[in-house]
This record gives sequence, structure tokens and C-alpha cells, in this order.
Amino acid sequence: MFIVVNGNKNSKEVIELMNWLKARNLSIQINEGTQKTVLGLIGDTSAVDIDSIASFKVVDTVKRIQEPYKKANRKFHPDDTVVDVGGKKIGGGNFQIIAGPCSVESEEQICMVAQSVAKSGAGLIRGGAFKPRTSPYAFQGLFGKGVDLLKEAREKSGLPIVTEIMSDEDIHLFEDVDLIQVGARNMQNFSLLKELGKLDKPVLIKRGLANTIEELLMSAEYVLAGGNDKVILCERGIRTFETSTRNTLDISAIPVIKKLSHLPVVVDPSHASGKADLVEPLALAAIAAGADGLMIEVHNDPIHALSDGAQSLTCEEFAALMPKLTALKSFMNTLK
Amino acid sequence: MFIVVNGNKNSKEVIELMNWLKARNLSIQINEGTQKTVLGLIGDTSAVDIDSIASFKVVDTVKRIQEPYKKANRKFHPDDTVVDVGGKKIGGGNFQIIAGPCSVESEEQICMVAQSVAKSGAGLIRGGAFKPRTSPYAFQGLFGKGVDLLKEAREKSGLPIVTEIMSDEDIHLFEDVDLIQVGARNMQNFSLLKELGKLDKPVLIKRGLANTIEELLMSAEYVLAGGNDKVILCERGIRTFETSTRNTLDISAIPVIKKLSHLPVVVDPSHASGKADLVEPLALAAIAAGADGLMIEVHNDPIHALSDGAQSLTCEEFAALMPKLTALKSFMNTLK
Amino acid sequence: MFIVVNGNKNSKEVIELMNWLKARNLSIQINEGTQKTVLGLIGDTSAVDIDSIASFKVVDTVKRIQEPYKKANRKFHPDDTVVDVGGKKIGGGNFQIIAGPCSVESEEQICMVAQSVAKSGAGLIRGGAFKPRTSPYAFQGLFGKGVDLLKEAREKSGLPIVTEIMSDEDIHLFEDVDLIQVGARNMQNFSLLKELGKLDKPVLIKRGLANTIEELLMSAEYVLAGGNDKVILCERGIRTFETSTRNTLDISAIPVIKKLSHLPVVVDPSHASGKADLVEPLALAAIAAGADGLMIEVHNDPIHALSDGAQSLTCEEFAALMPKLTALKSFMNTLK
Amino acid sequence: MFIVVNGNKNSKEVIELMNWLKARNLSIQINEGTQKTVLGLIGDTSAVDIDSIASFKVVDTVKRIQEPYKKANRKFHPDDTVVDVGGKKIGGGNFQIIAGPCSVESEEQICMVAQSVAKSGAGLIRGGAFKPRTSPYAFQGLFGKGVDLLKEAREKSGLPIVTEIMSDEDIHLFEDVDLIQVGARNMQNFSLLKELGKLDKPVLIKRGLANTIEELLMSAEYVLAGGNDKVILCERGIRTFETSTRNTLDISAIPVIKKLSHLPVVVDPSHASGKADLVEPLALAAIAAGADGLMIEVHNDPIHALSDGAQSLTCEEFAALMPKLTALKSFMNTLK
Repeated sequence: MFIVVNGNKNSKEVIELMNWLKARNLSIQINEGTQKTVLGLIGDTSAVDIDSIASFKVVDTVKRIQEPYKKANRKFHPDDTVVDVGGKKIGGGNFQIIAGPCSVESEEQICMVAQSVAKSGAGLIRGGAFKPRTSPYAFQGLFGKGVDLLKEAREKSGLPIVTEIMSDEDIHLFEDVDLIQVGARNMQNFSLLKELGKLDKPVLIKRGLANTIEELLMSAEYVLAGGNDKVILCERGIRTFETSTRNTLDISAIPVIKKLSHLPVVVDPSHASGKADLVEPLALAAIAAGADGLMIEVHNDPIHALSDGAQSLTCEEFAALMPKLTALKSFMNTLK
Repeated sequence: MFIVVNGNKNSKEVIELMNWLKARNLSIQINEGTQKTVLGLIGDTSAVDIDSIASFKVVDTVKRIQEPYKKANRKFHPDDTVVDVGGKKIGGGNFQIIAGPCSVESEEQICMVAQSVAKSGAGLIRGGAFKPRTSPYAFQGLFGKGVDLLKEAREKSGLPIVTEIMSDEDIHLFEDVDLIQVGARNMQNFSLLKELGKLDKPVLIKRGLANTIEELLMSAEYVLAGGNDKVILCERGIRTFETSTRNTLDISAIPVIKKLSHLPVVVDPSHASGKADLVEPLALAAIAAGADGLMIEVHNDPIHALSDGAQSLTCEEFAALMPKLTALKSFMNTLK
Repeated sequence: MFIVVNGNKNSKEVIELMNWLKARNLSIQINEGTQKTVLGLIGDTSAVDIDSIASFKVVDTVKRIQEPYKKANRKFHPDDTVVDVGGKKIGGGNFQIIAGPCSVESEEQICMVAQSVAKSGAGLIRGGAFKPRTSPYAFQGLFGKGVDLLKEAREKSGLPIVTEIMSDEDIHLFEDVDLIQVGARNMQNFSLLKELGKLDKPVLIKRGLANTIEELLMSAEYVLAGGNDKVILCERGIRTFETSTRNTLDISAIPVIKKLSHLPVVVDPSHASGKADLVEPLALAAIAAGADGLMIEVHNDPIHALSDGAQSLTCEEFAALMPKLTALKSFMNTLK
Repeated sequence: MFIVVNGNKNSKEVIELMNWLKARNLSIQINEGTQKTVLGLIGDTSAVDIDSIASFKVVDTVKRIQEPYKKANRKFHPDDTVVDVGGKKIGGGNFQIIAGPCSVESEEQICMVAQSVAKSGAGLIRGGAFKPRTSPYAFQGLFGKGVDLLKEAREKSGLPIVTEIMSDEDIHLFEDVDLIQVGARNMQNFSLLKELGKLDKPVLIKRGLANTIEELLMSAEYVLAGGNDKVILCERGIRTFETSTRNTLDISAIPVIKKLSHLPVVVDPSHASGKADLVEPLALAAIAAGADGLMIEVHNDPIHALSDGAQSLTCEEFAALMPKLTALKSFMNTLK
């Protein structure tokens, strides 16, 4: 960490700051420039609060050199993490497609979709039982019953299940879920992340609409720091000024995250675009950019879906898309 | 609500859509244009899911005319809401300044700050007991003990207390808190909002970093729809490309919200800017733009604060600022 | 176009608005709702100024149904436009890679790079002679001499040349340039666009950092409306809150533009990411998403480049990348 | 400037970088940390290209300590710049209101508005003769004739005139204009800025929709570096995800710029909001935050305006607003 101060090393304010730093077991290298002095901190700065340093009035700029995450950092864990979700591996060259409806609506619906996407080659089935909806008047999900229906779908299709948790109070309902999803709106629900860190169960964390890649890795760090190392990250679009898509898929996040971290990265082209006809080009782009998996919304009857129908593929559309995705993935493996 | 479709009223796809709409008790006015047909929906569309309509492939565009919020809507509640927080009124011409440290750190600290800001004329004391921190290695707050210390500070200063809740699991600890704050990162933690809707206690909802004004009003609607009508909104900066401030204060949000809604709006210049020296100009601007209150970070010893010191005023700086704020507020009252 | 008004059709204000509309040769369909009236306009609304309508105080919302661009609109020109640049075709299934340094620095440099990228399989050579630089103290380009050196490079490599124009005053220097580039910062330099519309020469328009896809198409419309139909669009990243990349590549822009317009779309992964090591994954993603070409910075000696070295590939890196790009493009052709 | 490198000072790559730096007359202080080495550069780094340094593969991060602008920098020019525009002073405690229509439409219109706003107390009259319009089919202005009409309005009203230039080719038409405006879309039209730097005439530079405050100051630096020190800056809203206003007024830009630079800052609440009813609260907020002036759209007949009517005040509304603005400005002077 480097601190630029407006003053020389003998000024009262700079000495005060240096004493504060030394009290935190950091040693200091001093560089006096023409206008400013720069203090280089040596030691473990990951727990040092950058804001506290900035609050010293003599400080002009503080800059972290080390990344603030450790367990999520590829530097300290060079090998790719492989997460096993109910027998399906994700990461380290293992690629999976997670498919299913936005919401679990009925036994018939979820079992039908699960069997269909399984037949098409999906590796996991997804479906929302607890639904984060902007409006209190919109369909909020089937809650515990939705989770039970997913388990039935798992039995019928043979696919592990993925579903979203919205509150740490509900965690007991997710004991038998294969992959617990933290939604974009809860990416910085730190109470929830801490609870998930206590589990021995795969967790998928979606990037928040206004969150940086570093913040996503810090949210992963919450789960990892708690002792749960089964974390998968998901890029699902960020919020920008562009309105022709629901969100803006940050395709660069895939290679950026894979350089910084060892954790698997999957991409959700359905939420990123909000439009069914954009799912194919974005899914292909994500594979070409190196994603470890995809999360695609599929509904047996999108026009009667209780949520997010506009971005759902039909089972037939998904069946037609799958061979393209797997062919491209195989092709990409030959390019390396 | 208006739906633009690519087809004429006699096409199979348009008829299918119209049947779906009629099944939801909506009547339809049809307008055929040169290239497209437009369907105008008549009836209560607030519970209609715009995404469901968009999922019909024949649909080109759907546009809501009515706002999706009702209880938060000024149209249906023309008079300003006044929220009474432990005897201090906010809204409808009543202006309050909420001051205090980012985090409650010790009995001495919070009581000292509370007494100081009370003396300077603040109306409420704030302090974080549960702290949402990007890093799991940063100070996370004193939890229940922090709430207890706030109560002591209330006793000593006579000021009602404001503190942030991070999980519905902790709600029992907030029974004796005067104003419960929902932080920016939890603005769309709908589980939490639903629980707060069941209380008879003032709730302050901070706008999320990437949330629109309409989404903020929808989060208020969650609490209001639950039966709790004591909601205060807080603008605290949004995330943009500009990096010279921590966030970008959306000053326009004040008059925009006050036009759309009857709820009080307070502004947090400390979090918006992230810099102590910007608090004064932003606080003055917020008053001039019509804010019902301010939330300002004040710490007895910012350079040793456990969080967010850079944006905190000292007690002395706050004491010097208060007369300017109250003078401007009085002056603004004469302008109308 | 639809206009929602706060009032009924017999009110003075609504009648005034309707008279204004009729004076512009538009006919009106009236729909009265429970709270508002909606006016549907029939006729050619592309020249109607949406702001003028919004300025009537009785107007609540105005919404355009027709796209505001005509010549760039795929609806009126269903077939892909193919632009021939010095014998190299772009669009309609024709794919080209444009490579070369950010700036033309010397005869030796540009000729060496041109010959090298030609050998690797690039279709066109790029190089900046007029450089838009944030700082007045940074290298500004070789101006006319740079253009002359590019022509030499064309002669030696056999590749058509691409270079950026910064002012309509310089247009005479571009007479013998094969493809004139309008940079991101000049995307809405309408004086320049109008002048380029008078030429019979290919123009590549880069999307501005804060410009929507619709605005990009409107800038293309300026050139097309002037009579020049040789327009190529370029996605090169937009500005968002994320700082780990120089810009955020909006990969969705490719399929979105190709749906809305018949014009070719190329992608610049170098400027989008600002980092040489991200060029490969983003270039592959762009091909998978359907781009008609790529624009890649290549420098013989990036560490001594006068501008943008950090994002430049060396000639050797480009030579190693080309086979992957062409292999993927060929593979994608088999997927359709 | 500080450079963090992945390697120690004796490695071949680091030595190569250090030689490159020394060749640019910079001396280097070396600090070896546990994982990285940090090089501190001493000397004038304002002309050093940060991208060139970043292109060395051994470089992890480069961080500028000195601001890249000099002539615009308050450090080197502590006193406020006062710009005299036709006898009206702006900056250094001098406050002016610039008012007038978006476009000059006719002699009658511009003279009528000029006389009206002069009577209300405006200091300058504005009006667009060259109009940057997103659509080639929209009204583009009266060009030279518009400038002539403005001069007539100046004669009749006694107010200096402000109008926008769109191309360096038109500069001869602006010889007798009092204040030349560079619009937001041309903020980085560096060819134009260079030409304006050669004049001895006040220039107002509007911040671009996606430009940082530092970039705005760098654009000012272009004009100042050319020898023209009569520069005024204008905050007019930036582009964000929020759609309830046309742009997001960055109110913090006022105090931030005034800290970094000595140049006057005016605010345009009309373009920032796009709505006439938001002009008053935003204008008041800008004054409270310390703006040196305001730029407000006023039209005699907004509903028949040829551009931007929605955000224009009528002459009567402006006349009613002026006393509030001047009263607040006077009040703010008493607060200091």
C-alpha cells in the first residue's frame, strides 16, 4: 500500500500518521518528492482500512498494491478450483450448462422442463422458489413448496438442482439443494454470505448490477473466509446507460476474473440481455471468452410464465441451441 | 399500459395476446397504424407483469402509463407524509439533521458524539452497530452491544436513535430503536423489507448504488404494502463513471421524488461524496433543492475511526456547520 | 408515436396540442383511459421532434414507436450492406481483420508492421496520423505526413489503409485513404459527419463512450442521409463504473445492431479492454457473437510506442493469434 | 508518478524500464516490497504518457501523483480566474446568469427573449445558431444568420452574447461573439480546442456526458496551453442509468472543480434535467454549492420552440425565478 501525503516526513501530521501505521505492525519506506512525500507500507495490509488512512487530513491519496482478497486470489491458489455440484463438476476445464425456468410454478412445469433440458444435455436444473421482485404485487414464488418441487424434478430428471436463497432465515430449507444461488441484489447481503460460509455446500454468487469485479471477489471472500471453499461466480450483466438490453453483459469479466482468481465463472445470458433472441449470440460469446458454464432460462410455456418470460427460451429452442454450444465448447478446447 | 405489436388485430398471435389480457380483467382499445397495432389497456394494471407481456413474440414494446407504486404515489396521497421519530418530525415542512459516527465503537465515543451533536442542534443521533463492509476482514460492528450503547447515548443526549439493520434475523434487537435504517446494499433485500412492513416503526430506506428512483419507490411500497406507513427515503449517491467522489450525489432525486411521492426525503452528503470537505457544499445544495433532512457523519476522532473516517466531520466542524445549515433552511422557507 | 396526456380530449390544452400535431400532417387516434388520454399519431413521425411535444405542459409521456433512423434501418433494407474497402469486402458474410499501430510513428515502423500483419493475414492496415489525446502535452500524431507514410505502407504491404479524421478542415488529406475512421470522441461531431456524407468513400464510425446504440445508428444516418452509403460501425467499449478494464466492451451491441440495421459491425477489443492480454478472449467472443470484423492494435515495439502501448500486441503475438481467429470464424460459419 | 513492478530491481525487465525512464530525465527512487518493487519518479511527469509505461509487461500498476494539468491547476494559480465577457465578469465572486433559447429561430424571437431576460436581470443572452442534433432530420440551426440575429439581440438588450461553435471551419463567424461555447459532444474535439486556444476571447467548455472532471480540466488545458486564458467550465449533467431525468446533474463537480482549479464554473440546470419544473430546485442547489453562474433556457413560446422546448422556461417563469436566485446568491455571500 502506498500513501501520498502533502508534507514532509518531519511534519507533525506525517509523524502522527506514521505512528498510527507502525501501531498496526507495518513498516514504512519514505520517499520525498518535489511536492509530496510517499510512504510505502511493508507488511500485511489486507486488514488495513483504506478509509481510515484517507481520513488523515495530510493524506492526498492512498493506493492498495496487494489485492484485498486472499482466499479468492489466484496468486495464492494458482490452480483452478473445481466445484462438484451433485456429481457435476464446474471449473478447471469442466463446463456445465444450468437450465430451467425463472420461477418454479408447478410440479408439472418444473418436472417437464427438467426432463426436457436433461434430454437436451443440460447438466443442472435451475428454478426460483424465492423470487426477488421489484414489485410487492408481483408473484413472489412458492417458497418451501417450490424447493420441494425442485427435488421432485431432480428425482425425475437426474439433474442436480440450483435455486436462490433470499434470507439467512430460510437456510434450513436449502439443506438438500445442490447449489445455492445468491442473487445479484443480495451480492452484498453480508449476513447471508457469512451464513453460507458456514456450510459445506456449493454457492453460486451473482455479480450485483453496480458491483465491480473486485467487490464480487470480496463477496466470494466472505464465503471462503467462513470455511466454505465451494464458490462459483456468475456474470449476469451490469447496469449502464444503454437501454436496448436489460443489462450490459460485461464479457471482459470472464478473462479478468480468471486471471485474478481460481474460482469458476459462469455466465447468465438470459438476465444479461433480457431478450430470448440475444441468448444464443451471448452464450456463444461467453464460451469463446472462456466461461466455465452457462445459466440459461428455459420455460415450457414462456408466454404464460409467471416471471421473466421475455428472456426465456422454449424447451424446443433450448434443444436446438445445445448442440451449437457443445460444438463450440469442443472447438474452443482444440484452439488452446 | 400500452402494447405495440407487430401484426394486425386479426392475426392469430394478436388474438392470443388479447385473450390473455382479457383473462386478467383488462379491457383493450385497439389502434391500427401503418406498420404496427397498438393495444391500450384499461383497468388496474399495477399487478400486471410487464415481462410476461413482453414474452409474447408478437410484442414489440410495452409501456406502463400508470406508475407501478400506489401507496407511495403522490397522486393517491397528495399531502406530504410526516413521520414522527421519537418526537422529532420529518417531512411536510419539518426538517431534521441526523448526525453521528459511521460505527458505534464504545460507550464513551457514542455518548460523547451524541451529546456534542445534540448541543450543536442535531435532531437525531445515528451510529452503526451492524456494519456492511466490503471486506470480511474489516470491522463488522458491535452488533447487539452497539444497539445497547446507542440507547445509552439516547438517554444521555435526549436524541432519538437511528441505526442500520442487515438481516431480518436481527429484527428483535431493533424493537427499541427509533428509526431503523435499511442500507443501500439492502435496498432490494425484499425479505427484510417485508418484515419491516409488519412493524409500526419508522423505517429509512437508502437508495441503492445502481437503483433508479422508481425502484426506490417500489422498495418503499414493500414496507407500505405491509401496513407500515412510516417510511423515509434517503438519497446517498449513485455509482457512475466519475471517480473523484466516492459516489455521485443525484441532487435531482430530491425534487423528482417529491413530485412523484408524498414520502419525506433526506440526503446523506457524507456517503455521497466520501470526503469531509465536500459535506458542507453538498449539504447546502440539498437544503436548497428541498430536502426534508440530512444525515451527516460526525466522529469525535475521525482519524482513529474504525470505519469511514475520511468522510466524517469532527464534532467541532459539525458545530461550525450547523448554524449555516439552519440559516439556509430558514432562508429557503422565506423564498416560497 | 404515442403521447400520454393528463387531461381529456375536450380540454383546451389537449386541443391545442392536437392542432399543433395536425399542422404537421399527422392524424390522431384518441384513447381515453381512466386517468389519462393517449394520442396515437399516424403518419411519418421521423422528423417530429419529441422534445417539442414534451414541452406541452399537458403531456405526461411521449414514446416513439418507429425508429428515428430510416436509411440505417434493416426494416427498409433487409439485406446486409457489404462495404468494399480497396478490394476488401466487409459485411454480408465477409469478415476482415484490421490491424496496425495506434499511431503512425515513422516510415520504418508503419511499413514493417504493415508487411508483418499482411503476412499474418490481416485484411487492412490501420494507423493514426491525427491522434485525439486527452492531454495537449501528449504526442498528437504526424498529421499529413502520417497519412503519406500510410500510403507507403499500403504500397509495400498491398493492404488498404484505415486512419482517423479529427476535423472537417482536414478532409482533403483523406482523399486517397481507403477507409476514413470517425473516432469515439467525434461520434457526434455532426459537422464532420455531414462532410463525410458528401464523399463516395467508406467511413467507419466508432461508438462514443457514452452513446447508445440508437445514437450510433443516428450518426450513421447523418452520413447515409448525405448520400454516402458506405458506412461501417464499430463497437469499442462504453464507459461504466467498472475500472478493471479501460472500457466495458458491450458485446450485446453486435447482435442488437445487426437486428436493427443492415450495416456491418466490427469490434475493437484493444480499445475496449486497454490491455493486450484481454485482446484474445474478447476478439474470440466478438467473432462468436457475429462481428463482421475486428480492429486490433499491433505494434512492432509496444514498449516504445508513442501511444497506447499497453493494449498493443506485438507482431509475433498477432501472428500467433490470427490462426485462432480465422479458425473460429470458419467454425462459426459451420454452426449456422 | 509511481510504478509498481512485478520483479526486483536487478531483473532485466526492470532495468530496461528504468533506462527508458532515465532517458526521459526522470530520477527514480526504488522501494522493494515483499512481492513487488515500487519505483517513484522524480521530475516533471506531466508529459510522460502513462500508457507507454503500462505497456512494459513487468508493470503491474502506474499511478500519477501530480495532476496532468498545469495551467488549469489551482496549485500553480491559487487565485480565482475572473473572466470578463463583454463587460460582465464571471468567477472570483462574480456571479452571472446566462439565459436564452436553445435555438435562435427568428429576429423577433431572439430580440424579444433578450430584452425580456435583460429586464429580469440576466447578465448574458444565449442562443444556438449551430445546433448539434442527434437526428439529421431535425432543425440544425440558422448558422451564420443565427449569429447575426444574436448580434441584433445584443444591440437591443445590451447583453453580451453566448453561442455554440461546432467546427473549427466556422471560427471566422464567431469573431464578434462575446463567449464561444463548446458543447458537451465536442468537449474532446481537440482540433476545435486547439483553434480556440489561439484566440483572445472567452470560451465556455461544457462537460461531456461521459467525461470525468479530470478530462474536463484537460480540455480546458488545451485552450490554456494555446495561450487563451479566458476559460469558463460548465457542468450540465452526466449520463447514468437513471432515466427520470435527461441527465444526472453532478452537483459535486462544483466544489470538486473549484478545489482543483482556479477556473469559473457555471451550471446548466436546463440540460441537466431536461424538464422545466426541475430548473428551479437545481438552479438553487447549484448556487448553494458555490457555482459562479447559471445557464438557463428561456423561450418566449416553449411549445413552439424548434428544439428543447420541454426544458425551457417561459419569459414569465424566468422573471419569477430571478429574484429567488439573486436573493439566494446574496444570502450565500453572508454565510461565508
